[in-house]
Amino acid sequence: MKKIGKLIVGSGESSADMRYATGLSTPDAFIWGSDGEVSLAVLSPLEFDRAAAQIRPGVRLVRESELGGDGRVGRIVKLAELFEVSGFAVPADFPLLLADGLREAGLDIRPAGEGSFFPEREFKSEDEVALVVKSLRAAEAGVNSAAEVLAACSIAADGSLIHDGEMLTSERLRAEIDIELLRHGTLPTGTICAGGVQGACPHNAGEGPLYAGTPIVMDVFPRSTASGYWGDLTRTMVKGRAPQVVKNAYSAVREARDFAKTLIRPGAIPEDVHKAAAAILEKHGFFTGRNEGGDFGFFHGLGHGVGLEIHEAPRLSLRNRKPLAGGEIITVEPGLYYPEWGGIRLEDMVFVEPGGGCRCLTECADFLEIP
Amino acid sequence: MKKIGKLIVGSGESSADMRYATGLSTPDAFIWGSDGEVSLAVLSPLEFDRAAAQIRPGVRLVRESELGGDGRVGRIVKLAELFEVSGFAVPADFPLLLADGLREAGLDIRPAGEGSFFPEREFKSEDEVALVVKSLRAAEAGVNSAAEVLAACSIAADGSLIHDGEMLTSERLRAEIDIELLRHGTLPTGTICAGGVQGACPHNAGEGPLYAGTPIVMDVFPRSTASGYWGDLTRTMVKGRAPQVVKNAYSAVREARDFAKTLIRPGAIPEDVHKAAAAILEKHGFFTGRNEGGDFGFFHGLGHGVGLEIHEAPRLSLRNRKPLAGGEIITVEPGLYYPEWGGIRLEDMVFVEPGGGCRCLTECADFLEIP
Repeated sequence: MKKIGKLIVGSGESSADMRYATGLSTPDAFIWGSDGEVSLAVLSPLEFDRAAAQIRPGVRLVRESELGGDGRVGRIVKLAELFEVSGFAVPADFPLLLADGLREAGLDIRPAGEGSFFPEREFKSEDEVALVVKSLRAAEAGVNSAAEVLAACSIAADGSLIHDGEMLTSERLRAEIDIELLRHGTLPTGTICAGGVQGACPHNAGEGPLYAGTPIVMDVFPRSTASGYWGDLTRTMVKGRAPQVVKNAYSAVREARDFAKTLIRPGAIPEDVHKAAAAILEKHGFFTGRNEGGDFGFFHGLGHGVGLEIHEAPRLSLRNRKPLAGGEIITVEPGLYYPEWGGIRLEDMVFVEPGGGCRCLTECADFLEIP
Repeated sequence: MKKIGKLIVGSGESSADMRYATGLSTPDAFIWGSDGEVSLAVLSPLEFDRAAAQIRPGVRLVRESELGGDGRVGRIVKLAELFEVSGFAVPADFPLLLADGLREAGLDIRPAGEGSFFPEREFKSEDEVALVVKSLRAAEAGVNSAAEVLAACSIAADGSLIHDGEMLTSERLRAEIDIELLRHGTLPTGTICAGGVQGACPHNAGEGPLYAGTPIVMDVFPRSTASGYWGDLTRTMVKGRAPQVVKNAYSAVREARDFAKTLIRPGAIPEDVHKAAAAILEKHGFFTGRNEGGDFGFFHGLGHGVGLEIHEAPRLSLRNRKPLAGGEIITVEPGLYYPEWGGIRLEDMVFVEPGGGCRCLTECADFLEIP
């Protein structure tokens, strides 16, 4: 029986596995294949020259016309002949239509488990840590510039915020953050600036005027244009004085985050870390549940891996009992959400040190009240 | 025999079909299904409230916990029971691992042809045209701000450009454009600012110092954060005087673009339009081929559809003989690329009028030399 190779079809921009395999950031999909020894990327004329300059060492570039074969299925069949393989392992998100076509052409196409096509992606080298930190620093610059904007605001009679003579909205604050991200060579993708009760929905991006005395959740996750690695940072700020319940929630979330960080080390069970953080929130009287108004309390995972994907393995969440091994970069981001007053989320990134413990990568200050 | 339904699993951000079906821009994947009458989106607690505010009319929102079923396969099996269908048609890029799981669970999973899951996406309503135009206006603002930067530059003794006392690079010019895109509520994704010989590779994003007297290709394609629709615009500029060959190439490309626009109408064959544009370039003495230096001349398609994807049907290219029907939005972007001096590309967008002819959506001036 012949062995099988590895195959990806996707763009460098949208497939993290492709970016990892080739280092290329092409907008259009192309073919990468490997027989375990040789690895090849098959490029169109539009991409060829740029690819030649950017390709990861060890990957050979081939022109579509050199490889031969008609269309994508034909080219991949040629590739299988070249490699002398009977088929390919492919990522979990490999496109179905193409897979069916390849199977019809007689190839054995086997999807890898979710996120396990390159299991080594979960464990970062120091070079990769440096690339993530660079994107994280961009996020920190964005959050700091938002804090400056809030500091420079005045408060109108109705509590709305005035900046440079205009009403400050989620949209304008987001634009300030995003411009800072661009200046740092990263692309903003969905920066969250959710004020007041909008912040009670963890993924609400925020819109409309911002007000004093209510929390503004800012979740900033830029991707480096050059490297493709992401950073992830969340801070929550209040312009002026925060109500007592918001202060209490903030303290609870901060304690939960900081305590969770003391538990993260090789051997730690993600579910246990999540539960320990949740227990601290409960200890402070903040409960989780659902009523007619929707979900409230702490109803998302404590954190997730970050690398060439913004959400990747491992998950720090309920039901994940696979121990951390060391080498992971993960977020630690407890939050509390109540439709009555909004949300608090604080998110740091840590590197699980293979030698034990974890190293916090985030340098950004915590700030709740901005005078 | 039971009928089959329609199914998408993806995020609103990365799946144009999902965005089209639901109007949602969620970062995480979720399930949408339809039996032809009822259509349902199955959301996690993180997204539910925001989704309730944004969901497209006619789509019913369901909580994961309400639907029941274990994991994604289990939930989709529940959905099939609810709809009384034996399986689902899915988009061509449906994830293979999930498809194999669903087939194992007894469902009939049939991938639609490339881009034909919602064939109606190819034909735009006037509302959709307005959304594309809005993103196109953002691109135009970006290109105009780049022209202003070039106009404000001085030229150093070595020909490099000086702006605000600093050397102007591709990176800085791109940042100027991208900031303008953000101000217009759009996200920049891979803005091209390729100067000199870098412009000879159509997808080279450009890096390093920019010089007078050589063409700078600027390809700007922002996506609206609110609507998800893209705009697409390319202009090529030279600071100072352009060499004669560049002027000639510019005239040829402009004539090819403008002549192609006169041919675009319902009934026109994309391949014929492409060939007519290519013939004009040849008439001006600009030939296409490949030598040891790579590809040269005009070696990409004349244009492509634009909507919720930046590249979608129909392609204006060789081998596409399916007549235009009316209602498409397409780019018209001939280009010439020579490793000796760089590239010229000019790109407009047109709407194929169902009543005949086409309407140019682009308002941006053409400019070659910037004094």
